[in-house]
Amino acid sequence: MAAAATSTPLYVRIAETLAQQMARGTLRPGDRVPSLRDLSRQQRVSISTALQAYLWLETRGYLEARPQSGFYVRAPFSSLIPEPQFETAKTQPTPIGPEAVLTDVIHALNNPDNVPFGAGSASPELYPNRRLNMILRRIVHRQPHHSTRYDFPPGFEPLRRQIARRAIAAGCGFSPRDVIVTCGAQEGINLALRAVARPGDAIAVESPTYFGVLQSAGSMGMKVIEIPTHPQDGIDLEQLEAAIRKHHVKACVSMSNCHNPLGYVLSDKYKKSLAELTARWDVPLIEDEVYSDLTFNGVRPRSLKAFDRKGNVLVVSSFSKILCPGYRVGWVVAGRFRAEIERLKMLSSVATPSLPQMVVAEFLETGGYDRHLKKLRSTLRLQVEGVRQAISKYFPQGTRISRPAGGYMLWVELPGRLNALKLYRAALAQHITIIPGTIFSASGRYRNYIRINCGHRWSDAHDRALLTLGRLCEKML
Amino acid sequence: MAAAATSTPLYVRIAETLAQQMARGTLRPGDRVPSLRDLSRQQRVSISTALQAYLWLETRGYLEARPQSGFYVRAPFSSLIPEPQFETAKTQPTPIGPEAVLTDVIHALNNPDNVPFGAGSASPELYPNRRLNMILRRIVHRQPHHSTRYDFPPGFEPLRRQIARRAIAAGCGFSPRDVIVTCGAQEGINLALRAVARPGDAIAVESPTYFGVLQSAGSMGMKVIEIPTHPQDGIDLEQLEAAIRKHHVKACVSMSNCHNPLGYVLSDKYKKSLAELTARWDVPLIEDEVYSDLTFNGVRPRSLKAFDRKGNVLVVSSFSKILCPGYRVGWVVAGRFRAEIERLKMLSSVATPSLPQMVVAEFLETGGYDRHLKKLRSTLRLQVEGVRQAISKYFPQGTRISRPAGGYMLWVELPGRLNALKLYRAALAQHITIIPGTIFSASGRYRNYIRINCGHRWSDAHDRALLTLGRLCEKML
Repeated sequence: MAAAATSTPLYVRIAETLAQQMARGTLRPGDRVPSLRDLSRQQRVSISTALQAYLWLETRGYLEARPQSGFYVRAPFSSLIPEPQFETAKTQPTPIGPEAVLTDVIHALNNPDNVPFGAGSASPELYPNRRLNMILRRIVHRQPHHSTRYDFPPGFEPLRRQIARRAIAAGCGFSPRDVIVTCGAQEGINLALRAVARPGDAIAVESPTYFGVLQSAGSMGMKVIEIPTHPQDGIDLEQLEAAIRKHHVKACVSMSNCHNPLGYVLSDKYKKSLAELTARWDVPLIEDEVYSDLTFNGVRPRSLKAFDRKGNVLVVSSFSKILCPGYRVGWVVAGRFRAEIERLKMLSSVATPSLPQMVVAEFLETGGYDRHLKKLRSTLRLQVEGVRQAISKYFPQGTRISRPAGGYMLWVELPGRLNALKLYRAALAQHITIIPGTIFSASGRYRNYIRINCGHRWSDAHDRALLTLGRLCEKML
Repeated sequence: MAAAATSTPLYVRIAETLAQQMARGTLRPGDRVPSLRDLSRQQRVSISTALQAYLWLETRGYLEARPQSGFYVRAPFSSLIPEPQFETAKTQPTPIGPEAVLTDVIHALNNPDNVPFGAGSASPELYPNRRLNMILRRIVHRQPHHSTRYDFPPGFEPLRRQIARRAIAAGCGFSPRDVIVTCGAQEGINLALRAVARPGDAIAVESPTYFGVLQSAGSMGMKVIEIPTHPQDGIDLEQLEAAIRKHHVKACVSMSNCHNPLGYVLSDKYKKSLAELTARWDVPLIEDEVYSDLTFNGVRPRSLKAFDRKGNVLVVSSFSKILCPGYRVGWVVAGRFRAEIERLKMLSSVATPSLPQMVVAEFLETGGYDRHLKKLRSTLRLQVEGVRQAISKYFPQGTRISRPAGGYMLWVELPGRLNALKLYRAALAQHITIIPGTIFSASGRYRNYIRINCGHRWSDAHDRALLTLGRLCEKML
């Protein structure tokens, strides 16, 4: 396992210095910041490091890029659109009941007539369909018997090889043998939870956290402890340790890159601390990486797994958010739980479909992935920013919006009196889906939060839908 | 639910009369039985009913068909190759441990160099690949965005419609809305078990039973009660009722058509009794139908579901055994548990892959299914008979072989001193896979049994492999 105890990257240090200058008033809104060439000379760094520093500042709302001109200091973003607040959750183990709202949400998402702000996938045309179909046809022609066998666990070897190869960019040094292919990341999460915890056990999660984790744990009779989670800085490690000390925590689930729904990418320092803390207490750490490749600054952040020295981290990921949701190709790298995950995968669904595995493997191998990723990242960044601007324009005063560093979700805090579940129902009556915040909590929190998917190509219909949502909010105040 | 309290079919009654004549010696080995035309006249039935009667007798070893000549009375089959014996199992709830042998078996099956008597699928060329690939290419051309959405539960509507349409032949009258598509039947079994039972609960199963059911139940902390099961007549209903009376049985799992590994097809009368018994005691009945279309006599037998009046039967099936194992398209019809299964499917794997669902739906719709089935059934019948003959030739005296009425598995009882697990290991060293009988039991039974897959095209290599197996047995005696 390649593990690196890195300090803060150079570009972040440069960016932070500039941010301090802005805070002190040395650089003021509307000022043009030094050109990339000048910054690179001043700081004695490469042009690309200088660019990374500016992109970091841009993502966080300090700068704006003006075409043909350069980067300018922006009116402090926080004064324009504040971020959701940091709320302390109760850290008691909570049993999870079946969530009726979730079934309802799924049915709404199945209707293609609805504006899909509630969906968990991007616009159909954002996926590399042409290229995937080309590869698919090639394989069907070359291997007409492609689906005549069960691809028993651990799964299709060439795919596992490609996954291991790509993981190097995330600081991980696992081998193809460590990879177990699954039917999407959701099966992976289930297998990981089942490998490390039993019914009745408590697992620690971020708050808010992806509802699929809460519901899966609940359906297996597990309890969750919601650890207070800062919208930019992640799970509160002291509170996590306190919860581990107090309760018999059997696993911790974390999404440190492009968090769903918060959107943050955590620092290497933080990741190292979290990996070490859980290893010290012998608490398996389940890492959800489905959005990790989708950072807006174009850098693949390290995995928590990169800081794992004891085989304590179980990485779960998939290609659903980047290549093709309907292929259902996910994977798990499970450290010391490998054999158990492999056994459970066999019992869960025998095999992952063969043809999708073959197509994804060839797509990864023939090099289309990085080109596609670059395009997708920049498209998503613009879409996320477009939706943020529209929300800040249309929604009532007091609305707060997350500042994602990647992915395509926005986490929106509505003014306190607003009931997100009512908004969800009113919006659905207008053929607009959103996800109400409550299902991101096991203890009834986030009643005035919603999650908005920005993965869909911007259109007038989307703009109108956000205007409608804003008006519904105003009416409900 | 269409439920019919049918009596024994006409052709079975005719066949049974002829069988009695053979038992009495009126018809003796070597005798030619009346031609189809004569039988049809004598009995005042159609030629096709007469043929069904002869096929029924042939399957059970009473007759043999001689090309260009007719049907002849055979030396009583039982004297040549006796069937495995009926053993009474203990009907105590038994917890199930992880089965190390199973993992081992899976690895052996992953190796294409091994002769696959252990596999759970047929020869690649027995699947309708050409036609499936044609449909696949057509869909990819017509709908290039085929996999860009999650096909949320219950799954692809046209597929569900086709499944409901076909179920009429099995005596079932459910609607497309009742069908929930799954990643193969194994996911369906898991969902069904989870919907009706909790960790610690006991479920009743046939003995022997498909190992996937035992392992799944075990991995969820459930216990199983193995009910004595006759190799032709199915689970002992009195003992089942006694077990239900005594223990708090939460579900019964049954495979009444083309049982794996026993191969029987049970009578409608029996099915009705089982469905009524479980309904009376409010014990959900999980019905595994993966091989049900593969009866050798060409008749689609009724499902247990056909006798369900209270929504108490959960049917689980798939297209893996007939169309394409690697597509992973299965389904559940869950009666009164529909909503719960739909919720659990979402948590289990979000969606079933889109493209395979679309291909199977179109294959079913455009009518290739029945033609394919007819061909496959007769091929499998010959292969099963071929393997039976080879085993009876090569294996030591005292070997007993099942007489399947469908499917492609043989259940072989070796002379008592023979340890099937040792045979499995010795065979593997010769690159032959078989499945040792022990994994079909939770309580260590079937130590001298093996399961042989006859789904692979007969070849010299297969004949040699059976000869090798026979010699290994002789050596171990």
